[in-house]
Amino acid sequence: MVADARQYCALPSPFPMKRGGALHGARVAYETWGTLNAARDNAILVLTGLSPSAHMMSCAADPSPGWWEGMAGPGKAIDSSRWFVICVNSLGSDKGSTCPASANPATGEPYRLDFPELSLEDVANAAHVVVRSLDIERLACLVGCSMGGMAALAYMLLHPGTVRTHISVDTAPQAQPFAIAIRSLQREAIRLDPQWANGGYDIHGAGEHYPDMGMSIARKLGVITYRSAMEWNGRFARIRLDAEQREEQQPFGFEFQVESYLEGHARRFVRSFDPNSYLYLSRASDWFDTAEYGGGNVMEGMKRIRVERALVIGVSTDILFPLEQQEQIAEGLEAAGAAVDFVALDSPQGHDAFLVDIENYSRAIAGFLAKL
Amino acid sequence: MVADARQYCALPSPFPMKRGGALHGARVAYETWGTLNAARDNAILVLTGLSPSAHMMSCAADPSPGWWEGMAGPGKAIDSSRWFVICVNSLGSDKGSTCPASANPATGEPYRLDFPELSLEDVANAAHVVVRSLDIERLACLVGCSMGGMAALAYMLLHPGTVRTHISVDTAPQAQPFAIAIRSLQREAIRLDPQWANGGYDIHGAGEHYPDMGMSIARKLGVITYRSAMEWNGRFARIRLDAEQREEQQPFGFEFQVESYLEGHARRFVRSFDPNSYLYLSRASDWFDTAEYGGGNVMEGMKRIRVERALVIGVSTDILFPLEQQEQIAEGLEAAGAAVDFVALDSPQGHDAFLVDIENYSRAIAGFLAKL
Repeated sequence: MVADARQYCALPSPFPMKRGGALHGARVAYETWGTLNAARDNAILVLTGLSPSAHMMSCAADPSPGWWEGMAGPGKAIDSSRWFVICVNSLGSDKGSTCPASANPATGEPYRLDFPELSLEDVANAAHVVVRSLDIERLACLVGCSMGGMAALAYMLLHPGTVRTHISVDTAPQAQPFAIAIRSLQREAIRLDPQWANGGYDIHGAGEHYPDMGMSIARKLGVITYRSAMEWNGRFARIRLDAEQREEQQPFGFEFQVESYLEGHARRFVRSFDPNSYLYLSRASDWFDTAEYGGGNVMEGMKRIRVERALVIGVSTDILFPLEQQEQIAEGLEAAGAAVDFVALDSPQGHDAFLVDIENYSRAIAGFLAKL
Repeated sequence: MVADARQYCALPSPFPMKRGGALHGARVAYETWGTLNAARDNAILVLTGLSPSAHMMSCAADPSPGWWEGMAGPGKAIDSSRWFVICVNSLGSDKGSTCPASANPATGEPYRLDFPELSLEDVANAAHVVVRSLDIERLACLVGCSMGGMAALAYMLLHPGTVRTHISVDTAPQAQPFAIAIRSLQREAIRLDPQWANGGYDIHGAGEHYPDMGMSIARKLGVITYRSAMEWNGRFARIRLDAEQREEQQPFGFEFQVESYLEGHARRFVRSFDPNSYLYLSRASDWFDTAEYGGGNVMEGMKRIRVERALVIGVSTDILFPLEQQEQIAEGLEAAGAAVDFVALDSPQGHDAFLVDIENYSRAIAGFLAKL
């Protein structure tokens, strides 16, 4: 049996969706670490990027390394011996939460494209249900990374008074056109793959009808925009593959190490993430805009967020969520009355730095949490 | 009849290719403007980016606007009333030069993937044949933009003493891994399109078997990397398409203006550029490396270039050919003994700025040419 530390929280049924429609009998998967104290005021909720599961760190029930293993655990920056840490798998993601690959109770068949339109507000509302189910009135800290950072902003806007402090990591107060263009092209690669078949491929990656091509292109484009040119100059330069690593007889086949690096990333991803779920979460990211909460103005929207303190971290090499957007979040939270620490890093790893440059991100996050 | 100002220059037959093999009965298309003086020393040769034709500016025989219409012509920065201007369609491009869509004289059928491996050195050598055929010993100036800038470096390395001055525009002394990754993914989108059929699609975009999907994705990815996030924030922001512009009933169809902008670019390109030629030229760009001429060192390679003066222009928003690479070219040419003017612009248009920010590029180029 595969180790599994997931718990499940049923959502109210119906669970109304922001853009219309509702889910029936839906649930979200989550994991927890550490112990909730008697006052129930030491909880930290982490909202993830587009693809990670709720398995943020290892534990007895699932000793496999989590996606933020270096950041969280006993004695680490997000210290599970002090905090009760919750990580939620986003609603619409296929890592245990209800998603387009789940059975639609109305038909018994997978939702596929009958899944209602998904927004990051729905992701936030579902995470809030988990927190309430644990009888937590107010989070000590809400952490959001990448897409999860946008969901965290939605959470604070929709549930005022439920978050004491906030850590914003490499995210955005609204999707900008460059990020929309990248995600649109990722979606198009999937949509144009004949094997996508309007969402009708073999679910769970088990069968032969599967949009491998579209998912591979989408993932590679993702990895290109998650890292940075600077990192790759140092890491790959113009190093060629060894003769035995090359695709034999393949016209225009891979020749440089950077090409095989991308291929490796794509192969690990393609059949491990449901393509329809990817499309829904991707489009949800494009839609997100705090300006909706401020009469069309980002700053006015941000000003409606109520937290005591916030830490905003960004990295100068991030082309998908540029540093200017982190500055905007910091300014917005400050204008809203929070005491804000702003940390701009020069990590070479681009958007993914929060997963790689654990040393610098840990220092910032540990320092912030120590003050609480 | 379509207006056409192209002239053709036969290449020596056989025309040996750098990476092996040779072309037989090959030719390159070119256009000229202005008059070659009696001393034959007022010629400027322009080498283009990957996709443009030799039609750089309008003329009596072809009054349609050229790809650098604002830059070149009588009284403009590249002043055809003073200079004899030549623009060559790259060998391997399908705008009149011999390319993979051309008939292979050995079979009478299109070369397709039987075209020999193409390098930018071959592009440079073919351009040099054109210049020699016009009885020009030495160019007053060699201008290279983007891919053509790399071909220009090859030209000067392979034909020392044939270039008096050089203008380098938004290019690179070697392909870096970020640019290789982008181009590799563009090629993969084409290669994975079942309609590409290993190069066997209906040539000239006339038939139904054609890799429209792959070419569309490749072009959109190109446009994303040719422009800049900064420009798009101002230009598109989060503006939605009007209801009538949206793709009806298309799941995950276009909703933002930036998406329809990319689609427009793709539609204009897809059937107007031969996919196999695109693949060959794209890979030639990855292979280019001045370090090959300097025992593995870019600076040593650049030092072998002999020109009197050079102008190197780059733009801070270019993510494909970053400003650091323009600095490297300027340093290399200076180390080689040239008097170098280096112009770093902040145009918001990214790599494409040389085609859009005509005002600033014109000022730099006109100022440089005025000194000759």
